[in-house]
Amino acid sequence: MIRCGIIGYGFLGTRLAQALTDYRPRGLLLTALANSKGYIFSRDGFDKQSLPRDLSTHRGFKQDTPLQLIEDGLLDLIVVLTPTNVYTGNPGLTYIREALRRGIDVVTADKGPLVVAYRELISTAKSAGASLLYEATVGGGIPVFSLARHSLRGDRIRSVRGILNGTTNYILTRMHFEGLPLDLALKEAQMMGLAERDPSLDLGGIDSACKVVILANALLSMDKRLDDVYVKGITQVTSDAVMAAKEMGMTIKLVGSIEGGHLSVAPRLVRLNHPLCVHGTLNAIQFRTEVMGELTLIGKGAGESTVSALLSDIEWIIDRRAVSRVGP
Amino acid sequence: MIRCGIIGYGFLGTRLAQALTDYRPRGLLLTALANSKGYIFSRDGFDKQSLPRDLSTHRGFKQDTPLQLIEDGLLDLIVVLTPTNVYTGNPGLTYIREALRRGIDVVTADKGPLVVAYRELISTAKSAGASLLYEATVGGGIPVFSLARHSLRGDRIRSVRGILNGTTNYILTRMHFEGLPLDLALKEAQMMGLAERDPSLDLGGIDSACKVVILANALLSMDKRLDDVYVKGITQVTSDAVMAAKEMGMTIKLVGSIEGGHLSVAPRLVRLNHPLCVHGTLNAIQFRTEVMGELTLIGKGAGESTVSALLSDIEWIIDRRAVSRVGP
Repeated sequence: MIRCGIIGYGFLGTRLAQALTDYRPRGLLLTALANSKGYIFSRDGFDKQSLPRDLSTHRGFKQDTPLQLIEDGLLDLIVVLTPTNVYTGNPGLTYIREALRRGIDVVTADKGPLVVAYRELISTAKSAGASLLYEATVGGGIPVFSLARHSLRGDRIRSVRGILNGTTNYILTRMHFEGLPLDLALKEAQMMGLAERDPSLDLGGIDSACKVVILANALLSMDKRLDDVYVKGITQVTSDAVMAAKEMGMTIKLVGSIEGGHLSVAPRLVRLNHPLCVHGTLNAIQFRTEVMGELTLIGKGAGESTVSALLSDIEWIIDRRAVSRVGP
Repeated sequence: MIRCGIIGYGFLGTRLAQALTDYRPRGLLLTALANSKGYIFSRDGFDKQSLPRDLSTHRGFKQDTPLQLIEDGLLDLIVVLTPTNVYTGNPGLTYIREALRRGIDVVTADKGPLVVAYRELISTAKSAGASLLYEATVGGGIPVFSLARHSLRGDRIRSVRGILNGTTNYILTRMHFEGLPLDLALKEAQMMGLAERDPSLDLGGIDSACKVVILANALLSMDKRLDDVYVKGITQVTSDAVMAAKEMGMTIKLVGSIEGGHLSVAPRLVRLNHPLCVHGTLNAIQFRTEVMGELTLIGKGAGESTVSALLSDIEWIIDRRAVSRVGP
């Protein structure tokens, strides 16, 4: 049995936990749920009935760091859904680092650790024979890493472009179709729960830049950090500029790109009939490969669709462990 | 060593052969090249220098059916690139059936055999422990089956819609953007080599319907044939209808769909800013899944990008054979 713990028990964590209670027949037990204040451990595994709604008020809640579970060897797989800090990578980075060192598999939706220490973590995972999977970090509803790993194997990715942030894309879409100024479109997005109260990471292009760093390191074997990305957000995009673009059959989108070794995030003119030109909160990622040419993937960027990305990673780990069990 | 033969040595076959000569270090030898008239066999495998430009005029060409190679146990993998007959499945069906029966792996770009006998072939492959892969049959530049197999494993596909035929999409695109009538747009496509002299399979929707059948059987575990698809082509789409759609911010596209057990191909109104609304010869495929929601893939439908699909399938087979060799 694979003993699995979830660190981070918010929107994503609760939904993932529900899905994972169905995995017992597949050989996976959900044995730990943790947040920043402590954890609940269940040796026999949670089922749908025994899943707590709220961790901290649940009996059995232990005020302690989840590192304890990792150090005590009580888990085989951790799913890290901690809040992202793109500058320090913590708290997620500490959990991931300690788990991988001990050969514990890691699935994460937290961008911070990968932006800060991608090469280190991959190399730690390799030495310890553990897996580090992160499909949920970029385009939650777009299986970009899985696709590259499995479906482009006879091929080689040369460049990547993408609309990687749903909040800014929603704002730019409203500016384009309704002629709204940026501040009004932002307020609307905040009211709909699509933008945070401090929207600076999204609007300033930092969230997109983090995703560009992860894509560059994972898909093009680069060794890049946030500092290596030229970043310009959308705060200076005016309604007039969007309208002028519209008259030419174009619009302005916040595009992240990796091209010829250069990483950038900036508002760019995109033709309205270009495959990359998606609207609302949709994300789009376009590869240019050597043999296949251009392939574009369009899907939801965040929310419940991210659960699908986490499950896909977890299934991969279940299968890998099944293969190595029957192997030599 | 995996001894690989290519049956069908036209545009795709010659390009694939060139790519496969690089696979010797990966454990694959290209040992046979065949067309409808005969074959050349090379026990030591072809390399870039020894690849014939034209089969029939090459010394060593044997006027005989390629079935001989299969029956004589001289191949471990065949790549079937025969011309498609969607009603009989032949000649590809015969080669594939005989190969699978003998436990020989098959990779194919020929739709006919799958449209006529999908369930039979899958079951034969299973009994004999052989693989049957067909990424190249639908959206050559879109890894749709590989993605479903690997990346949507914790999820379930509920419905599929797609623009699956590049020829008709080129014609409808020219009608939309240039206001051309259908017959002129068709002539243009024929002059550019995008439409065949007899375009009835494309324009009549049959090619799209074949792809719908393969998608339904492969992705939704159905057991459908061409007769099960409601098919309406684009021959009655008028310039006036396209212009009327354009005025409403829409256009007319030939859409194949699988929804609630029903398979259809028909001209449909699509919003210009819908992810599925791609132009020129591009193809687009959209899944709706239980967890992830909607995912759209956009890429080239045919041509050289199809080589990428074939290579991806071949790599999968190389890896599978490597795993079973080290297994118990």
